[in-house]
Amino acid sequence: MPPVQRPKGTRDFLPRDMERRRWLEGRLREVMRRFAFREVGTPAFEHTELFTLRSGPSIVEDMYTFTDKGGREMALRPELTAPTMRLYAEGLLGAPRPLKLCYFGNCFRYEQPQKGRYREFWQFGAEILGAERASGETEILALAHECLRGSGVRDPVMRIGHVGVLKRLLSDSGVPPGEQPRFWPLVDKKDFEGLRAALGERGVDPDPILSVLERRGGRELLEKVPGSGLEEVLDGLESMGVTGYTVDPGIARGLDYYTGMVFEIDVPGLGAEKQVCGGGSYSLAELFGAGKVESTGFALGFDRILVALEAAGAAFPEAGPDFFVVPVGPAERGEARRVVAALRRAGRSAETDLAARNLSKALKHAASAGASEAVIIGEDELGTGLLTVKNMGSGEQRKARLEELLK
Amino acid sequence: MPPVQRPKGTRDFLPRDMERRRWLEGRLREVMRRFAFREVGTPAFEHTELFTLRSGPSIVEDMYTFTDKGGREMALRPELTAPTMRLYAEGLLGAPRPLKLCYFGNCFRYEQPQKGRYREFWQFGAEILGAERASGETEILALAHECLRGSGVRDPVMRIGHVGVLKRLLSDSGVPPGEQPRFWPLVDKKDFEGLRAALGERGVDPDPILSVLERRGGRELLEKVPGSGLEEVLDGLESMGVTGYTVDPGIARGLDYYTGMVFEIDVPGLGAEKQVCGGGSYSLAELFGAGKVESTGFALGFDRILVALEAAGAAFPEAGPDFFVVPVGPAERGEARRVVAALRRAGRSAETDLAARNLSKALKHAASAGASEAVIIGEDELGTGLLTVKNMGSGEQRKARLEELLK
Repeated sequence: MPPVQRPKGTRDFLPRDMERRRWLEGRLREVMRRFAFREVGTPAFEHTELFTLRSGPSIVEDMYTFTDKGGREMALRPELTAPTMRLYAEGLLGAPRPLKLCYFGNCFRYEQPQKGRYREFWQFGAEILGAERASGETEILALAHECLRGSGVRDPVMRIGHVGVLKRLLSDSGVPPGEQPRFWPLVDKKDFEGLRAALGERGVDPDPILSVLERRGGRELLEKVPGSGLEEVLDGLESMGVTGYTVDPGIARGLDYYTGMVFEIDVPGLGAEKQVCGGGSYSLAELFGAGKVESTGFALGFDRILVALEAAGAAFPEAGPDFFVVPVGPAERGEARRVVAALRRAGRSAETDLAARNLSKALKHAASAGASEAVIIGEDELGTGLLTVKNMGSGEQRKARLEELLK
Repeated sequence: MPPVQRPKGTRDFLPRDMERRRWLEGRLREVMRRFAFREVGTPAFEHTELFTLRSGPSIVEDMYTFTDKGGREMALRPELTAPTMRLYAEGLLGAPRPLKLCYFGNCFRYEQPQKGRYREFWQFGAEILGAERASGETEILALAHECLRGSGVRDPVMRIGHVGVLKRLLSDSGVPPGEQPRFWPLVDKKDFEGLRAALGERGVDPDPILSVLERRGGRELLEKVPGSGLEEVLDGLESMGVTGYTVDPGIARGLDYYTGMVFEIDVPGLGAEKQVCGGGSYSLAELFGAGKVESTGFALGFDRILVALEAAGAAFPEAGPDFFVVPVGPAERGEARRVVAALRRAGRSAETDLAARNLSKALKHAASAGASEAVIIGEDELGTGLLTVKNMGSGEQRKARLEELLK
């Protein structure tokens, strides 16, 4: 057991893990490019106040906080929306709007580690600031949909709702706005039995409320939210070829925070960790001194998407080098280095033996490194300029000039 | 002034900054791919002990440290070599060696912010574990050289030395090994006047020592380090077409840590922050319980390389969208969305107006977003299927079918 181990609840990423992560990152960034979202970056830690301003003081319990040597209260970021809004307030107030921003970064939460939940995790997200409401919501939903499609996740389920539904149902039943927040968490957890009990205790008939919240379906459910603008959003999605979503009036994510459309994307095979994306419309910039700017955004759980891909047996690209160049003996090492350098300059990936191994051991190492072809350099090769090239898959050998390998 | 600002000494990266950073990251990763180095990832924080084991207790002063809620002493990582060695000890002991690993990540130091020095900064680095000494050193020097070339930095100066030089010079002058470390920092800072004084105080004739340390030149300087193996390394570099380095016996970076070849790369135009890369051979794995494994590596100062590129007026790629699709009025919005979606599916980047602007304001926004072409969708276009395409550079307009734009 090594004397110092990685911190509890964190992960190391070995080469194969990292290749998969960079591959997925690239796929998601490619979607962002096509949708003309531009990436921003913020520090790994922020003043603790930034997050309590957005999420309330209770978030401190779930964060890594520390006092820096100047006595300032800092927190490792638990999410990236508040930092992005702060960046907007500090650096992008003068930029033409709407702004379409995206980010990719690690976030931190201090909680008991469990399957699929880590203390350091990654989010890929996007925010639109200052768009006309329905246009922004359409664009962000289309983007989230394409992120899932582009990453190759099978059968994601997008559910679209609106914070107005629950608020209106409760108001219509005589629960004033100030009393409503206590019911939100029950809806968010889909604890409809708990909700039924809590409503009954409050003297409210639960049936009309639950009959709406438990439904999933098409746009006919939107009749419950007059003036939500969701009709227009769904029309927009249809224009963009985005179908297959479900209208879900029972979404109650962060009702103290969202102001309009809310949505979630699940990958049902993932069990308790099935939600891979969540977002909606909100108004947050004014908290950071930037005036009122309507915003819509989402965050993708990068790690969960990877789990979904791995569980589905996704074909990740393999990363072995194109060539492994082996000198037969010490006299051929210089030539082997020349060949390796030429291959690399030509854009091919090439390895050479760095352990002064004999031919058979070097070929074994080439196989374990996943090389496609081995290039053997011996006395003959030095004389004729013809290299021996061995296909590591089939075992077949051929002779080739260096120029042919460079193509 | 926003109520919460970014932490002192840290940076936000606006879209243009981020595009440049991702571009440079991609260039460096491409070099790593061609050299068949494979990336690993480690947590942003580690047990504090990991860094004091490598660097001694004094490093705590320069780190962001905190006690987590479980009472464990943690530190935001100040560098990535120790974490990479820990990862090796925990996860890669069984992997075939030599291992060629690379990393890219943010690091943290608590110090007074100043020009070009930030509390959060980025390192791109590489380590080879378990190679035959000279082969590994050759490979790592060739890789560092190509990283600078691949990133497009002008006129980098690579200086190669060996920790044996100074140690031998001091021993030959009668300074026993135990007494030598007090002279190292003076050499590292190239404070030759200070060194002269300190040696004189110690009763040592400074001239023979300084005459070697102050020289720069070719391989003839290696005569001072018999048995260093550097001759073979320089032969290897020549085979790989790497020239233009200088042999510098006066490199004294971390002499308590390095065990053989050491090197640095400067970009002279950067003044006090001119060193963009440093590395060498070391033996660290045994500290982490992984047995003795000879290693060679380096870290590139990612931020400084960017500063060098920006100072030299490097031509970074521009990131405006290929198309900005503008509906002339509300009736054409659906069609505009269809066109945008089709362009994006074809791999083109496309924007549309999200602010319900009129045509002239939307075209103005398209220009400020840096779009190459605007696609105007009006009543005519709906009828004929011919889109009006305006080149945003020249202002010229043409008619085109959607299929032509998809190519």
